[in-house]
Amino acid sequence: MLSTMQDVPLLISRILTHGSTIHGTSQVTTWTGEDEPHRRSFAEIGARAAQLAHALKDDLGVTGDERVATLAWNNAEHVEAYFAIPSMGAVLHTLNLRLPPEQLAWIVNHAADRVIIANGSLLPLLAPLLPHLKPVEHVVVTGPGDRSLLDGADVRVHEYEDLIAGKPTSYDWPELDERQAAAMCYTSGTTGDPKGVVYSHRSVYLHSMQVNMAQSMGLTDEDTSLVVVPQFHVNAWGLPHATFMTGVNMLMPDRFLQPAPLAAMIESERPTHAAAVPTIWQGLLAELTANPRDVSSLGQVTIGGSACPPSLMEAFDKLGMRVCHAWGMTETSPLGTIARPPAGVAAGTEEEFAYRLTQGRFPAGVEGRLTGPGGERLPWDGESAGELEVRGPWIAGAYYNGPDGESLRPADKFSEDGWLKTGDVGTISADGYLTLTDRAKDVIKSGGEWISSVELENALMSHPDVAEAAVVAVPDDKWGERPLATVVLKEGSTATFETLRAFLAGEGKIAKWQLPERWTIVEAVPKTSVGKFDKKVLRRQYAQGELDITALG
Amino acid sequence: MLSTMQDVPLLISRILTHGSTIHGTSQVTTWTGEDEPHRRSFAEIGARAAQLAHALKDDLGVTGDERVATLAWNNAEHVEAYFAIPSMGAVLHTLNLRLPPEQLAWIVNHAADRVIIANGSLLPLLAPLLPHLKPVEHVVVTGPGDRSLLDGADVRVHEYEDLIAGKPTSYDWPELDERQAAAMCYTSGTTGDPKGVVYSHRSVYLHSMQVNMAQSMGLTDEDTSLVVVPQFHVNAWGLPHATFMTGVNMLMPDRFLQPAPLAAMIESERPTHAAAVPTIWQGLLAELTANPRDVSSLGQVTIGGSACPPSLMEAFDKLGMRVCHAWGMTETSPLGTIARPPAGVAAGTEEEFAYRLTQGRFPAGVEGRLTGPGGERLPWDGESAGELEVRGPWIAGAYYNGPDGESLRPADKFSEDGWLKTGDVGTISADGYLTLTDRAKDVIKSGGEWISSVELENALMSHPDVAEAAVVAVPDDKWGERPLATVVLKEGSTATFETLRAFLAGEGKIAKWQLPERWTIVEAVPKTSVGKFDKKVLRRQYAQGELDITALG
Repeated sequence: MLSTMQDVPLLISRILTHGSTIHGTSQVTTWTGEDEPHRRSFAEIGARAAQLAHALKDDLGVTGDERVATLAWNNAEHVEAYFAIPSMGAVLHTLNLRLPPEQLAWIVNHAADRVIIANGSLLPLLAPLLPHLKPVEHVVVTGPGDRSLLDGADVRVHEYEDLIAGKPTSYDWPELDERQAAAMCYTSGTTGDPKGVVYSHRSVYLHSMQVNMAQSMGLTDEDTSLVVVPQFHVNAWGLPHATFMTGVNMLMPDRFLQPAPLAAMIESERPTHAAAVPTIWQGLLAELTANPRDVSSLGQVTIGGSACPPSLMEAFDKLGMRVCHAWGMTETSPLGTIARPPAGVAAGTEEEFAYRLTQGRFPAGVEGRLTGPGGERLPWDGESAGELEVRGPWIAGAYYNGPDGESLRPADKFSEDGWLKTGDVGTISADGYLTLTDRAKDVIKSGGEWISSVELENALMSHPDVAEAAVVAVPDDKWGERPLATVVLKEGSTATFETLRAFLAGEGKIAKWQLPERWTIVEAVPKTSVGKFDKKVLRRQYAQGELDITALG
Repeated sequence: MLSTMQDVPLLISRILTHGSTIHGTSQVTTWTGEDEPHRRSFAEIGARAAQLAHALKDDLGVTGDERVATLAWNNAEHVEAYFAIPSMGAVLHTLNLRLPPEQLAWIVNHAADRVIIANGSLLPLLAPLLPHLKPVEHVVVTGPGDRSLLDGADVRVHEYEDLIAGKPTSYDWPELDERQAAAMCYTSGTTGDPKGVVYSHRSVYLHSMQVNMAQSMGLTDEDTSLVVVPQFHVNAWGLPHATFMTGVNMLMPDRFLQPAPLAAMIESERPTHAAAVPTIWQGLLAELTANPRDVSSLGQVTIGGSACPPSLMEAFDKLGMRVCHAWGMTETSPLGTIARPPAGVAAGTEEEFAYRLTQGRFPAGVEGRLTGPGGERLPWDGESAGELEVRGPWIAGAYYNGPDGESLRPADKFSEDGWLKTGDVGTISADGYLTLTDRAKDVIKSGGEWISSVELENALMSHPDVAEAAVVAVPDDKWGERPLATVVLKEGSTATFETLRAFLAGEGKIAKWQLPERWTIVEAVPKTSVGKFDKKVLRRQYAQGELDITALG
């Protein structure tokens, strides 16, 4: 028996129409580096998004569900593209300007982008790339920047403002299937080719509603959100869509992501909310310590992307900026968990702080489960560690395989019953709080049990003689895998492998069967370009016999 | 191009599972009239809902999308039925215990309810009705009440607790189509047969998300909601579903809806939110004036169902209970508008108060438009009055026509393009605030323009000699309809129709062409059982020549 409800699809055009009428006076403020930032109302954004859609359709011949790319910072024009492109039925493809050029080229070619909307300030990045971007026919340039960089390129170059000028300020947005593609991001995987995640109108709409729930980020039209997380990074965590849905003002930093301008825009524009990855906040904290500013407007700071260090959370608390930890990934739109402490836990207590340091709870709409090394379901007991798998209407169930390809569903990324394997390993407490401890690929699978490399590393690094320690899995005939401990000793240390092993055993946290048998000393742990332990290199060095291994036990 | 997102249907079983795990310690507290209220955790509700579903399926043979009725107050068992019945695939049919018995019987027969879950305290209502309820085979009784009232009835009688005892506490909820029927309510229309509105899993889920948005009611697991609005009245405005989605505690008054117990439960349980119609709050206000209590916990009071009198809002403000006005109807799930003042309007000002007295703005997901007497779209200018039409995924697009019937789409209820004609007349301001002034059927359609009967009545009643005044439309050869003014004069009044008409003209608010030509004096305006002007009677009296009409102008 069907219901008697109207069959109204959840479309991004509806978010646009709602925001630009009901919340028409809310604003997108873009930092310019000048005295006055640039301000544009939601009503103006709505009118200009309609103009952009007309221009893309009539002048650039965008049809159907063609991908239209953006190479842009967070600013008002990027918000216009966010709404115009999916609303007209095309697919917004945000390009990550931080990727290596060859990856960027691969992605543009894979998505078959024919049009790129680019900030003028990013032409130095785009221009040398253009000869490698086969499908690109049109580049639409917004904002300041040297256009002559595109001279001689085999594309048609358009000024954004000229292109949209005089176009009608409304558009008869089509009634699309809500499951149709609306936007896409490629994950910058460290192994293999980048993988495209394609969001639907439905997934964006539902994710926006979720973000707006009071139990989640819960902003209203009285708020202003400083959207530091880039619009090319998982749709700026869904904030442009979510804010348009409820009239939350947006403060956009454009290319001014350095600590000093961020501090200045917080002081002068007084946002009530901000969202960024920990490194941004670490930089801001250093800036504020050196040059204090009034940042008291920031009642809620969403931190995600990687785990928030406790010291950062503490320091922000002292400045009156309350951190809310969240977890997600490109494949999860991204809100997967959010760390609001449970009701009844008193503010300012150690118990509350511990809850806030977890990755948090699943919001309504996201289901999570832990899978052990043998594929078994693990209990929510705060102790059983397994790979996190998630399900929900804004969670990816496949990757994009090009305009003519089938979807990709690699078995290491999606379970047989369709859940996303996140590649993150952790525990879930009885009251539903997720604590991530490892990436699955860094976990050691020993005799059907898992050993956390991070736990061993942290224990080793708490020894006074150890400067650095990295633990990786190495093949073992009997157990499948066993841990290899790679240690950098401090100068003058007299520690031996035996004393380190005894130290680990004495800590109490490490079970006897988890203790490493294989040990090696190195001068420094190999690191990636962003300073993380490069475990791939260690594993390769071990495999090629380049490490001097001592066997214990 | 389809997205790569998972295809996860929005189901009520997912709300149940989320609430009973992530928010398992949140509580449903039911008032008992004894010293201690009854408390049940969301985890227990989840387990018992699974038991109820097993019992309905295995013992009572409930299959497919069968309707299962409830005749119950707001209490924990009713919440269990709310989740068990739709989650298993059946359709929850809440019976309005305030309807006249013959209407109730018509509805049960029309819906073909085979099972009724009834509170023991309502058996005095149900027992005499049973012989007229042809399809009913099973009555499941919860809570205190004299079971012997059912002796001799041609149904099987079950004790709710006995029925569910020992059943498994989990249930493998089916993956349903989210557009499938989940719950139904009949509107108690004053004309014609009651009309069934059938909610889908999708509409309930989306409505719950909307209610939980910070821009809307915006409750969290730190809140407790006193759900006074009955569960048989548009799903208690969606609160049981919305609260389970975010862990909001529910305080349920059961049958104790009188002002004194309501005041007592507010003082002792300290809810932070409450929802009810104005008459409940009028009663509570009188009670609190006579017997002051500490009601300071109530930070937000949602008032809907009919317009909130300004005096009530003022009085509640003084008690520290902030009223939030909302509008909706059975056909709108019900949240259609909510009156949060726009950002930037200072609290406590006249401007803010005026915004709060409107019906409010459409939330994301609801679109509204005004249609004039000739079917034309009217502007949002705060002046053009038209019938409100709404569209959205939780708005009805038809009525239920029985188990084997097609849907009903009467042309006076649904537009050709599928919008709901609400039957309410009002204006929308440029910033999107709806102000309702009339029911469409009370508006006078004169020469392609509308005349508000309520406006004329209010103007007339502001004359010192007028005790009561009712204005209705009567047929007119030239204009289609014209207003008839029916006046009750105060004792000793010397006012004439001419002076009253001159008074209206002099008021400035009433245009000359809106002034009534037809006047009559009556001893009292006929009233309905709930004290409203009964305009049907006036129209009939006019049509049958029973009124003594004076023609002016």
